[in-house]
Order: sequence, then C-alpha cells, then structure tokens
Amino acid sequence: MTIKLNQDIAQQARQMDSADPLKSFADQFHIPNGVIYLDGNSLGVMPKSAPDAIAKTVTDEWGNGLIRSWNDAGWVAMPTKIGDMLAKLLGADAGEMVVTDTISINLYKTISYALSLTDKKTILVEHGTFPSDLYVAGGVADSHAGVSVKTIPDHADTDGVITALTPDIGVAVISDVNYKTARLLDMAKINAHATANNIMVIWDLAHSAGACDVNLKRDGALMAVGCTYKYLNGGPGSPAFVYVDKSLQGQGKQPITGWFSHQNMFAMSPDYTPAPDIRQFQTGTYSAIAYRGLETSMHIWQTVDMEQVREKSLALTDWFIQCMEPVVQKYGFGCITPTDHAQRGSHVSLTTDGDGYAIVQALIARGVIGDYRSPNVMRFGFTPLYVSYTDVAMASAHFGAVMDNAEYDKPEFKIRGAVT
Amino acid sequence: MTIKLNQDIAQQARQMDSADPLKSFADQFHIPNGVIYLDGNSLGVMPKSAPDAIAKTVTDEWGNGLIRSWNDAGWVAMPTKIGDMLAKLLGADAGEMVVTDTISINLYKTISYALSLTDKKTILVEHGTFPSDLYVAGGVADSHAGVSVKTIPDHADTDGVITALTPDIGVAVISDVNYKTARLLDMAKINAHATANNIMVIWDLAHSAGACDVNLKRDGALMAVGCTYKYLNGGPGSPAFVYVDKSLQGQGKQPITGWFSHQNMFAMSPDYTPAPDIRQFQTGTYSAIAYRGLETSMHIWQTVDMEQVREKSLALTDWFIQCMEPVVQKYGFGCITPTDHAQRGSHVSLTTDGDGYAIVQALIARGVIGDYRSPNVMRFGFTPLYVSYTDVAMASAHFGAVMDNAEYDKPEFKIRGAVT
Repeated sequence: MTIKLNQDIAQQARQMDSADPLKSFADQFHIPNGVIYLDGNSLGVMPKSAPDAIAKTVTDEWGNGLIRSWNDAGWVAMPTKIGDMLAKLLGADAGEMVVTDTISINLYKTISYALSLTDKKTILVEHGTFPSDLYVAGGVADSHAGVSVKTIPDHADTDGVITALTPDIGVAVISDVNYKTARLLDMAKINAHATANNIMVIWDLAHSAGACDVNLKRDGALMAVGCTYKYLNGGPGSPAFVYVDKSLQGQGKQPITGWFSHQNMFAMSPDYTPAPDIRQFQTGTYSAIAYRGLETSMHIWQTVDMEQVREKSLALTDWFIQCMEPVVQKYGFGCITPTDHAQRGSHVSLTTDGDGYAIVQALIARGVIGDYRSPNVMRFGFTPLYVSYTDVAMASAHFGAVMDNAEYDKPEFKIRGAVT
Repeated sequence: MTIKLNQDIAQQARQMDSADPLKSFADQFHIPNGVIYLDGNSLGVMPKSAPDAIAKTVTDEWGNGLIRSWNDAGWVAMPTKIGDMLAKLLGADAGEMVVTDTISINLYKTISYALSLTDKKTILVEHGTFPSDLYVAGGVADSHAGVSVKTIPDHADTDGVITALTPDIGVAVISDVNYKTARLLDMAKINAHATANNIMVIWDLAHSAGACDVNLKRDGALMAVGCTYKYLNGGPGSPAFVYVDKSLQGQGKQPITGWFSHQNMFAMSPDYTPAPDIRQFQTGTYSAIAYRGLETSMHIWQTVDMEQVREKSLALTDWFIQCMEPVVQKYGFGCITPTDHAQRGSHVSLTTDGDGYAIVQALIARGVIGDYRSPNVMRFGFTPLYVSYTDVAMASAHFGAVMDNAEYDKPEFKIRGAVT
C-alpha cells in the first residue's frame, strides 16, 4: 500500500539513503512487492542467489550425485567451512565456529561442556531472556546431579548482569541483545568480570549476529551460540552455530555424542573419542539443502563491512524512533528499547496496553511486517543490508494511519494465530 | 555402462519385473542416467516432485511469504503433520510420531526420557550397532549420575538379544536391522520379553523404515527413533523421527527443552511446562525447506502397500544373492547377511580380506553404486520402490566383470575418501 510522506521527512530519508554506503546490498536480496520488512530479526529475507543454489543442491547434488555428493559436493565439510565464513564476520578465528543443529540444542551442548570444565554447580540465566535459554538451562540442570539454575532479574543492564555474576556461578547464559527490549550489553566488560571470577559465559547471539558489532575475540568471549535465519539470511530454520575459543577445545565434554562429533567418524569404531576440535559440537547427519541456503547468504556477508552495519543499524533505529515520536506521543505507547546507543541492538519495541497484536496485524495488512511478542510488545527489526531510511519513514507513516483510522479494530486482526 | 546379461538370467529378471506390483513407483523417482543405485539404504533417491515443491518453499514461502509462512504455509505444523504421515507407514497411531532433529539427538532425548521413567540405571546397547547409538548412550550415561552402559555381544540374534535383556536393564537401544549385516530381529518377541521385565526398548529403525515390515503397535513397541533420508527418500540429512506410544506421553522428561517442546510456546513464559504430547520431543526452530523435501516423498509413500514392499525387498535380496553366487564362490567373498528371511533386512553385505574399498569404487565407476563400511564390508541396499530385478542382475554382472578384469586394482580406487 502506498502512503504519502511529509515532504521534509521524505527529503531527509532520501538524503540518508543516498549517502548510505550499504545501499547497493538491497539489490542482492528479494523483497516482496509492496512489503516493508521489519521482521528480519525473526526471519531474514532471501538472497536472490538462494533459489538457484538450493535448486542445484536438490536436482544435481541429491538427484544425480546422490551419496557421492557427501564428498563431491562438499556436504561433509559444510558445518566447518560455513563456520569459518561466519567466524570472519563475528571476530572469531578459523576453526572456532561450527554450524550445526538448533540454538536450543547448541545451548544444551555448550552449557554441558562448560559445566564439565568447572566444579561449580550453578548456572545463571536471565529471567527475561528468550524462553528457550531458560528452559534448556533447566533441562541441563535436571539431568546433572547437584546443578541448579539462578536467574538475573528482568531488565538488568551491564552493571546488573555483573552484580549477578557472583563467584559461586559456574556457567552463565547471556544474550548480548535481549529479544524483547533490544537491550545491548557490554560484552567486553562482562567477559572481563566473568574471567576474573572463573565464570564461563555462553553468549546467545541470536539477536546481534549480523546487526551489531559482535567481535568475539576482541571482547574476550570464550563460548557462544547463535542462529543464522534472522539477520544472517540463511533461510527458514537454517542451522545454528557454536563458537568455542581454541583454548577450550578438546578440554571438556558435550553429551550429545553423535558420530559427527567423533575424532574419526568413518572408522565406525564402537569406542567414542571426541574430535579434539570444534567438530566435537556436531552431532548427526544434517540437511545439506538447509546448509546450502545459508552458504549463499554467507557469500554476500563476506563482502560486508560490519562497522558500517552497526552504524546503519543505529541510524535506522534512531530514525524510526524519531519518525514514530508523534504517533508514540499521541497514542501513549511505551518504548522499552534503550535510547542510549551503547545499550541498543537493532530492533525497537513499543508497548501498549491493549491492541498490540491487532495493531501489528493491521500493519501487516498494509505490507509493513513487524511482529508481536506476548504479552504487550510490538517489535520492529532493522536490517542494515536491505532496509532503507525511506522504508522506515513509510512504515512510521503507515503506523500513524493505522492508529488514526483505528484500522486495528477489526475482528480478523484480533484472532491470535501461532505467529513465531 | 552397459553390460550383456546371460539370456536365462535376463529373461528371469524380465519376468519378475513384469509381475512386480510396485513397478510403477520407479516413475516417481529420479534415477540418474547410467546408474544402478544400490545405496538407497544410505541416501534414498529424489522424488521427481521434490525440486518443484522445494523451489516453491524457497521462492514463494520464504521469498514472498517470509515470517507469515510459519502459519500460512503450515511450517509450524510440519513436524507433527509429517509425523502422522509416517505413523501410517510404520503402524503407529496419529499423534505418536514427530519429525525432528537427527537420530543422534532423538536417541539422546528418548534414552533420557526412558531413564526418567524407571529407577533402574543400566542402558543396554548392541556392541555391533551403528556407532552413534553406542556413543549417545555413553553420552547420556556420562551426564546422569549412576547410569552405566552394558553391551550386547556382536552378531546377537533375537535369542541373543533376549538373553542380554536381564531384569537389571532399564533401557535398551536396539536396531531391528543391523546397519552392517542386515540382521533383522523379531521385534514382537523382544518387546514381549522386555515388557515382562520392565525394560524400555528404544528401537532404532534407521535401516528398516521404508523397507521392512515395521508395525510398531502390532509388535508392542513403546519407543523408537529413525531417519528419513534412507529408504524414505526425504533428501540428504532430512529430519529424523521419534515414536512414543500414547500411554507414555507426558509421563517422563526429555532434557533438551527448547521452546518447541513447550506446552504453549508462543506464550513466551519463563516457566517451562512440557507439551503433554509427542511435541515434547521437538526442540528448536527447524529448516522448513528440509521438511518440504520429506513431505513430497511422504505423499508417495502414503500410496504404498508396505506388505508388498517387504515381499519385494526379500525377493530382491534373494535374487542378488542368487545372481552373485558364482562371483562370491570364485573370489571367496563372505556374506554376513542372514539367509533366513525372518532374519534379513533389505541390504546384503559381502566381506573380503583385501580390496573391498577399491572394489566398491570400481563398481561406482561402472555406475553401480553401493558403499563400503570399515573394516571389510561391501554393502548393497535394495529399495523396493525403484530397484528392479533387471538392475540387480546387471549389478551382479558388473561385479563379476570388475573382479574378472581386476578393475579395482587401480591406484585411484584405493585412496580412501570420506564416503559416508
């Protein structure tokens, strides 16, 4: 749906778009007609190169190559090869990342691994984190004698997290960017404190990788997990990743010991010897097709300057907050996303008492796609590679129109689907 | 590569092909030109319908539908919906199977779940099973206080397995068809003994589902795992499955408690309540693309008579053993696959002292694709939906030629790749 912009706003947006050093990247992604996509923090858009690459893997590699493609098409090396591509983006060294399984499973593995490196028995998790992180920490604790979970209070900032990282904590699972509020933590400061107190932090990078200035080695991170289907455009449910600093590899145990985690899987030995490197975090046979989608986006990402990504992410979120200011004021929305740049990730979350879900649905009906998170959060993600300043201005204008026309007040927008 | 068949053999094969009630199914699969594919027990061939269905999921559902496709394209229901399709094939009821993750991960979940239902602390695994099963049982034991693993001796038959199922055993992981020898066990008899002794058997159906007469309810199975990329044609590394009898659902705990295992995942509650049904065995966000490939093959499989599959599987393996008899005799190969129908799965494994790997490579160079399993097994799988009796006769003739011409005696066939 088209919408007329205020002239000053339109001009300002055009100027910023024109000066945007990342503007040409949008050409490499498919944005559906009539859509302003502010949900790349949930499922990133498709690289235009993905359909052909995936079709080749299906038709040629599976269809014709069959079992031979595990070697001939490089399927067997995908987890480590794509892991190395990802490492380059996130400030890790080659051999420190592997692409495998899902975030939940990778958390289970890394928490277990970290516990095997310490005598301490307490796992610390943020109470307000993405629920899987809490659930999985609880799952690990349930199956490890004497292990228990403590939580960090909701809305803790860097200092709040540090306060919670008391010396009794053995392992902590922390999201640098909170999925709901977009609060960003100071990874370097937290890691320094954790290391001094012999606490292993596992960073959950789901909402930062591909949007923020993640630099694992620079900031002293030792372990991390994350997903690739959000800002990294790997495809719906594309495989997740594990990062383990070289110094910790081969030191501990992860318990989901499938054959891909074996030192020499093709020896088919009945005895288990873990791979002494990052391959220990692999498990079983994986979908080569799913990896191929991710690989195509990683080829694009290899050419991206991550500092420019972070700069544009901040500029886009600033601009959205600015454009939305009149609507927020007029309709009394809250904004739970920090205004301070140092504490803000790449999405903006507005709260409302009543019709948040229906408002998001009314926006979607206009082609402005954000999402809703229970109980009261309207969430909008800003992906520097394919969202423009004009998109943001238009989205804000649509938002205003949805409110002014009470477009959300339709029964069909109020029936809650299973939106992820 | 073409090869001339003995006239009697050729005629016999033609007659059997002509009388084959499953013969028309081959038209629904893509078999590469010049290939006789005897490795469908490792990676099944591609349904002709798969490329278009997957392309639609990539281009339309991901590309255009984006996040909306979790609901609109049914991604969110794929694990249970395809699980129900699979249940129909394997003699389970709707709601008893879910498609998720990999076999290794599903074994970890089901072993843990079974342990949570008993006070007994011993896991029994076959020593000669696919190594992942041993490794994962060890991984579970390592992280559960007091739990240990015992093994069933190599080459145990049904009676041997029953002897090993002593009352101290809490959980047993058993493959009905052994990946190396194709030995088939009597599931009903073992389950009856296990139930009488309060032992939970988790069946690993990797080498039987889609080829043998698996009927879980009829044969009293309570839990099972398996994969879909072999006989079931789901695509390379397509997601695996879990079966849990209704009576056991909601009774135990599986520890990899990602948000997809929650009773109400979209409530985003910090408190974990497991789904009271088969969804408890899901974990995290999965590749919708990988599921779509599997769904296309499941549509074909819904129309298949599984009794005819089992009958043809036995006839094909009989026929291969018969055609190969002169070669086996002349070159002194062993055959570790049982001759008794009641004890045979759907592949045939020949052993040799020396050049097994190179022989398999020389056969592949002729377009006859089987595989090799350390230390000395040449393995050939027979997939009733797309392998014909003439294929089997041709493969055997090629085998004879490879031996008679010593074609395996080339340096390039002896360099061991990482063949899966």
